Amino acid sequence: MTSPAAGVTLAALQAAVKARLEQVQGELRRIIRSDFGLIAEVNGHLLQMQGKMFRPTLLLLAEEASGAGDSRAEVLAAVVELIHLATLVHDDSVDHSVLRRGMPTINALFSHQVSVIMGDYLYSRAVVELTRLGDIEPLRVLSRVTNEMTVGEMRQLMAHEPLAFSEAEYDLLIRAKTASLISGACEVGALRAGGGEREALRRFGEALGMAFQIVDDLLDYTEEEAVTGKPSGNDLREHKVTLPLIHALGHFTAAARRDVAELMATPEPTDQQISRVIQAVAETGGLEYARERAQRLAEAAESELDALPSSPARETLRDSLTYVLDRRR
Amino acid sequence: MTSPAAGVTLAALQAAVKARLEQVQGELRRIIRSDFGLIAEVNGHLLQMQGKMFRPTLLLLAEEASGAGDSRAEVLAAVVELIHLATLVHDDSVDHSVLRRGMPTINALFSHQVSVIMGDYLYSRAVVELTRLGDIEPLRVLSRVTNEMTVGEMRQLMAHEPLAFSEAEYDLLIRAKTASLISGACEVGALRAGGGEREALRRFGEALGMAFQIVDDLLDYTEEEAVTGKPSGNDLREHKVTLPLIHALGHFTAAARRDVAELMATPEPTDQQISRVIQAVAETGGLEYARERAQRLAEAAESELDALPSSPARETLRDSLTYVLDRRR
Repeated sequence: MTSPAAGVTLAALQAAVKARLEQVQGELRRIIRSDFGLIAEVNGHLLQMQGKMFRPTLLLLAEEASGAGDSRAEVLAAVVELIHLATLVHDDSVDHSVLRRGMPTINALFSHQVSVIMGDYLYSRAVVELTRLGDIEPLRVLSRVTNEMTVGEMRQLMAHEPLAFSEAEYDLLIRAKTASLISGACEVGALRAGGGEREALRRFGEALGMAFQIVDDLLDYTEEEAVTGKPSGNDLREHKVTLPLIHALGHFTAAARRDVAELMATPEPTDQQISRVIQAVAETGGLEYARERAQRLAEAAESELDALPSSPARETLRDSLTYVLDRRR
Repeated sequence: MTSPAAGVTLAALQAAVKARLEQVQGELRRIIRSDFGLIAEVNGHLLQMQGKMFRPTLLLLAEEASGAGDSRAEVLAAVVELIHLATLVHDDSVDHSVLRRGMPTINALFSHQVSVIMGDYLYSRAVVELTRLGDIEPLRVLSRVTNEMTVGEMRQLMAHEPLAFSEAEYDLLIRAKTASLISGACEVGALRAGGGEREALRRFGEALGMAFQIVDDLLDYTEEEAVTGKPSGNDLREHKVTLPLIHALGHFTAAARRDVAELMATPEPTDQQISRVIQAVAETGGLEYARERAQRLAEAAESELDALPSSPARETLRDSLTYVLDRRR
């Protein structure tokens, strides 16, 4: 970034739209309200899990920074968060995850069946809510990105062949899986602005979203866990191949390649296997490379902001890039 | 029915819209075409499974009978079939079914993960296709019925307490699970007709759809399987409580009630347990009662057709009621 503001927190970004975010939460509760016992119960749990509301925050900032003056922004932000929740519920079901943000997942707390159906419920509820706005444009954007996310999930399922998974394929994966909805949130916030602002914010969101996922993948290699004091290496444990490893593979010694192949062939790799690969990736510059790519993507995103008039919201969007690069979890 | 035409086959109904149904299949192939390996592979399998295209048939007949003159009917029919396919893929995943129409299910052939993601892919692809039409009205109808279907699925999950599951709850279940999409297909076919025709066809579809599901549930009690020569009783085997049993429970002897309670408490009931309950249901008039209710629903559906001008398509819709009542599988 041209002027990195050190240590931007999510709370600092959200302070700028605090009152509006509370409205978003009200809309979210309204949209998923149900008088059907089991659905109400699952919804209650989902609202407790309480996401970080990063996508709604970006949508509201994009709305302000683009001068869209869109009175539907809070509803649109709630719908975007709802779509995000729906994908989390299905992701956890697909991955058989038992915890998310320290809370039991829907599949763990209820069942696999409930989580498949609830994901469908939440997504179709989001579409119903969008049709109530009487404007097809938000639906166009959000159905496209939702479809892209499913393609990204499919790519993820096929990304288990480490020596064959290229950086280009990784880019396609993270663009589809993560950047699409973040980009969609920014674009939808600017729908009622001019075409130039809308397009700039779409691209801003896409670059930011890719940087976001790269940092996420990097944290799996770097962030020390509270208990063990060691990086979690969960992606490696689940045989997920991400950018640090992809880059390092091109520069590995024969021994390091053998270690990776062995880890990928082991259904439940040991902590030692994981530590060894993490160390090899670090020594081969894989972490540095991933960090640089995230940095370059953030710069690309920042340059898109030049298309917008100067405003406090635009500066907060700039700060969101620092938040994405600097976050520790 | 006022004048039952004995033995109407689906093929006979479809003869009236044969050329248009072929266009629907072409649209369906176009919509789910994908250059992504795994998705293309799953799609190929789905197209091979080849549904009966009952919902597209009804949509096209509704379009003709209502005089809607809607050139989008084939695309809309393909989207309705796509939504139906998406729900089948998730239903099979939720139920862990291995066969559908004699073909292996997506979850059996690929994996649970693939079937969850593919269902999401198909549904979001359907929404994308609807947004391309530039008209929010089909989206309004079809997102509402899709959301209703998920509520129906939730009801199904909670319908395992035989002595507590009432006929009113069963009605809510089959209306949501089955009648909603059939009703939506009929309504969407008539979107460009007058409000009276649209409303009549919506109600026609709802009553027909409920009759369709009651007959389906009845066949599980009556239809002899090729190999065993006995009714399959699969619903009982899976502890699913449907109308014949619900009615019979109100008239059972203490011994028969005990048999049902025992069956429901047995994880894998024996053939003998199932035969005994089927026989008790038959002797207590449960089958007859369900048949009468389906008949009454078909009559209600038929009376809705009076709102439409006389036409060959209207007569074919009338025949579709006979098909629903008389079908053997």
